Amino acid sequence: MKLLIGNKNYSSWSFRVWLTMKVKEIEFEEDLRPFDVENDYADFFEFSPTGKVPVLQHDGLTVVESLAILEYLAEQFPDKNLWPANPRSRSDARCISHEMHAGFMALRAACPMNMRRKHAAIAVDEAVLKDVRRIETIWSQCLDKSGGPFLFGDYSIADGMYAPIVNRLQIYELSNIDAVASYTQTMTSLTPWQDWDKAARDEPWVIDIDEV
Amino acid sequence: MKLLIGNKNYSSWSFRVWLTMKVKEIEFEEDLRPFDVENDYADFFEFSPTGKVPVLQHDGLTVVESLAILEYLAEQFPDKNLWPANPRSRSDARCISHEMHAGFMALRAACPMNMRRKHAAIAVDEAVLKDVRRIETIWSQCLDKSGGPFLFGDYSIADGMYAPIVNRLQIYELSNIDAVASYTQTMTSLTPWQDWDKAARDEPWVIDIDEV
Ligand SMILES: N[C@@H](CCC(=O)N[C@@H](CS)C(=O)NCC(=O)O)C(=O)O
Ligand SMILES: N[C@@H](CCC(=O)N[C@@H](CS)C(=O)NCC(=O)O)C(=O)O
Repeated sequence: MKLLIGNKNYSSWSFRVWLTMKVKEIEFEEDLRPFDVENDYADFFEFSPTGKVPVLQHDGLTVVESLAILEYLAEQFPDKNLWPANPRSRSDARCISHEMHAGFMALRAACPMNMRRKHAAIAVDEAVLKDVRRIETIWSQCLDKSGGPFLFGDYSIADGMYAPIVNRLQIYELSNIDAVASYTQTMTSLTPWQDWDKAARDEPWVIDIDEV
Repeated sequence: MKLLIGNKNYSSWSFRVWLTMKVKEIEFEEDLRPFDVENDYADFFEFSPTGKVPVLQHDGLTVVESLAILEYLAEQFPDKNLWPANPRSRSDARCISHEMHAGFMALRAACPMNMRRKHAAIAVDEAVLKDVRRIETIWSQCLDKSGGPFLFGDYSIADGMYAPIVNRLQIYELSNIDAVASYTQTMTSLTPWQDWDKAARDEPWVIDIDEV
């Protein structure tokens, strides 16, 4: 099983899958391909039909799209409980994971994930604030209902999908509610989170467009 | 089981779920809520935590996000084979379904679904053409591999996810390759497709921003 990823400092979609595989102790070989921004990531087409990372290679299959990869792994490793075992919680977890996968465009565009960035607020518009408020609602409701420390009690795919948002709310100082603070603490304390973070800091590449 | 949807003429995400449930003969009550564009769809928040349709209500659960709803139904009705039964095909079907759910922004923004629209070409930019070329590749490869008539042989969630794209390529005359022509024929011949189309034509509402 091989996972092709982008720069750890910036590649939010790679982080979602990588973190989940590490937390769930699914073994894989990592293959990091630095972003070739100037050439419009053209080299990614050598291994990725979408031209994007992450890509999972397994058993002759090429699996693309973060959430499709995670669904594939959930099927391959039923004992790892990648989704919550309870069907109603699983449905809730899928709803918010898909909302993340297809949404929060304003926040994603204005506030790129950036592991190395110094924590400091930036000016954001109403559309970004609307995304932040919706995320605060989702996390608060999930943590209230499950009792935490993760969105559905134990770590699940939903936590993986929101991991880069944890980074964004933190580095751009976008929220000060308690649920966000405690969830940020839970997520950033994970050993795999810290391993990824350290590797990101050690990377030489700087992508200007993602430094805001 | 109740499915809340938007206008049949314009609501592409509603169409994906509605069509799949009809083709797979999953019974449900339909609840159409016309888009209140002027009030920013504010009334949708009465029943939808995202403020968006489609929404599935079942057994006290509220399920949002088209693809999360379809995953929920795939679990509820394993005998209906909403996903291809073969795990490798299922993985492929999830990849392209997720690529649709999170992508093709240029095409989606420039060329809204519009069941009633007269077929006629419009000028589109390079980003739209890139989306169209990628979709042509996906459909051609899937139909080649499966032998058709649907993307994975029998109708699956992947066909539901691409249904509004069938309409877009047709009404804006964006493709003239054989695979698109034959797949368009297959999809638009479905009785539920024709039922939806007829209901869309009978609707009184016109949304100016979607008439391009
Ligand atoms: N919907 C995709 C998004 C993947 C994506 O946009 N990946 C970025 C890196 S985080 C990428 O490869 N960008 C290169 C490009 O856009 O060409 C997923 O869920 O995996
Ligand atoms: N990612 C969502 C998209 C849903 C969506 O955007 N629905 C549109 C109608 S097709 C809507 O409700 N728009 C109202 C709004 O954006 O406030 C899904 O897959 O269901």
